[in-house]
Amino acid sequence: MITFADPAAFLEATIALPQPSAAATAAARARQAELTKPAGSLGRLEEIAAFMAGWQGTARPRIECVRAVVFAGNHGVAARGVSAFPVEVTAQMVANFQAGGAAINVLARAAGADLAVVPLDLDRPTLDIAQAPAMSEAECLAALNAGATAVANDTQLLFVGEMGIGNTTPAAALCAAAYGGDAADWCGRGTGIDGGALARKVAAVDQALRLHQSACDTPFETLRRLGGREIVAMAGAILAARLLRVPVLLDGFIACAAIVPLAAVQPGFVDHCIAAHCSAETAHEQLLAKLDLKPLLRLDMRLGEGTGAALAVPLVRAALTAHNEMATFAEAAVARCQ
Amino acid sequence: MITFADPAAFLEATIALPQPSAAATAAARARQAELTKPAGSLGRLEEIAAFMAGWQGTARPRIECVRAVVFAGNHGVAARGVSAFPVEVTAQMVANFQAGGAAINVLARAAGADLAVVPLDLDRPTLDIAQAPAMSEAECLAALNAGATAVANDTQLLFVGEMGIGNTTPAAALCAAAYGGDAADWCGRGTGIDGGALARKVAAVDQALRLHQSACDTPFETLRRLGGREIVAMAGAILAARLLRVPVLLDGFIACAAIVPLAAVQPGFVDHCIAAHCSAETAHEQLLAKLDLKPLLRLDMRLGEGTGAALAVPLVRAALTAHNEMATFAEAAVARCQ
Repeated sequence: MITFADPAAFLEATIALPQPSAAATAAARARQAELTKPAGSLGRLEEIAAFMAGWQGTARPRIECVRAVVFAGNHGVAARGVSAFPVEVTAQMVANFQAGGAAINVLARAAGADLAVVPLDLDRPTLDIAQAPAMSEAECLAALNAGATAVANDTQLLFVGEMGIGNTTPAAALCAAAYGGDAADWCGRGTGIDGGALARKVAAVDQALRLHQSACDTPFETLRRLGGREIVAMAGAILAARLLRVPVLLDGFIACAAIVPLAAVQPGFVDHCIAAHCSAETAHEQLLAKLDLKPLLRLDMRLGEGTGAALAVPLVRAALTAHNEMATFAEAAVARCQ
Repeated sequence: MITFADPAAFLEATIALPQPSAAATAAARARQAELTKPAGSLGRLEEIAAFMAGWQGTARPRIECVRAVVFAGNHGVAARGVSAFPVEVTAQMVANFQAGGAAINVLARAAGADLAVVPLDLDRPTLDIAQAPAMSEAECLAALNAGATAVANDTQLLFVGEMGIGNTTPAAALCAAAYGGDAADWCGRGTGIDGGALARKVAAVDQALRLHQSACDTPFETLRRLGGREIVAMAGAILAARLLRVPVLLDGFIACAAIVPLAAVQPGFVDHCIAAHCSAETAHEQLLAKLDLKPLLRLDMRLGEGTGAALAVPLVRAALTAHNEMATFAEAAVARCQ
């Protein structure tokens, strides 16, 4: 299990990242060329098989243990009226997760993924990022470790999701801080806000950037100032996964925004990640382009919770099943390309 | 079980199509509005739930019985050198299907779909469409019925796939005959052909169009002249599914091309179909646009066999599981949108 003793240990981890096995990747590609199909005709399934081979360090990767973790947090900035839902919904939805009635419960079960729910100090929202750093150093480190320790060593494929009324606002701030552009370029309709709430959201992001941007000189400081507990926990979990060589299916805009402070400094940070989907949240498309990730699914979803990632799990399973179980040209006595 | 007594009975069936239940569709939409998520946030999953509700005639649709059928046929036009593989591969791949070693075996199993394989007179290729009608009336009717009778009444979701060396050539001819454009607009690289084979393919389609187009005055005659046995069987199966109110996941370019003669005359013909994916075969994108279908997946696949459709089955299952198993706002005591 991964933990970070202090901010310095976290920052060191972000620059000493394990790499996939090039030999295993090459061996998986060589096997793909022998399977009874035209070369390359399984498209992205072939890429997924090679990707998983690299991270598992074997030509014949398998996944039995898929784990999902949903982190929940509350946000001071929500008091500005930036969401369509009241803040009480965060805790109510956590109860719904715990009772098994939310979309992620159903979709994680359908995907054969073990789901854990990690509420983070819901009765103690972060401070309003438009007025102060969201968290103290100790709070930010605690959130990173809540994420990192949620990744069990035996995980073979991870996805993380979130619940936090108002959390597309800090997510937009993290993107704007890293990649520039106007606040409005990164602010979308979230759970379905109208013009007034959207204007308040853009103003909050603008104000947060003016207040914090010059002080965002490390990924830790950026997460601490502009993030939120569930967002920071996702970053901690996705980094821990990398340290454990566990591939990650990235969910939507917020899950991707969580790793922006890391990826902006170190583009190879996302090498252990597959973008599961592109959501309907407007800025997700451009964020995926900045991260140089091509989503597997585009289903106009915008729910969060990890739901988009859950839907991509069967594609990864299918890719590995085809890779491992198809017959070769020799085994099936099928003639090759002329 | 559906059969067509003669070409006239087939043509009558194509214009007397059952419609989905509007009441069940509306009831499913009403349930979606009560589930614990922002309205519309499950995107296409919500559309799929309403679509399945309409065809099953219930607000709470379920799928237990998913069936896949792969039809195989051989093509006289293949002798012109329009494929990267020798024609013997059709029969060799059928043997591979029967032994369980092909991609569709593995992916159908992963999708929980029962797979049937229907080889159609492989030792008796159709005639070369550039020189003659592919089939006699009796042969075309037999192929339609091979498709129609392959759809068992208890099927709740169907997909059909194909194997037939050279079969993107008749598929391109069917598209060009219905939608116009140059032959080259509809001819792609198939299993991976180079410039010379591609030129021969375009020439064959051109010649077939000049020879047959004026005589293609009914869907039956178009299929008979320009099709192939496995293509005609797919059309028969997809029509039979409509008559039985069984929804269909459409696979790639060839599966979509098979229904072009029907859809071009009757655009509502595809109302019981979901496009599972857009393949890497160049013309598939424009064919989906002509059919007014938005694919669920884009994975750069170009294998056929029904493999793209198999990958979309878990998305349909997930849509229905979310629809049926999520808690409502009232059940979970979650506050609604402000």
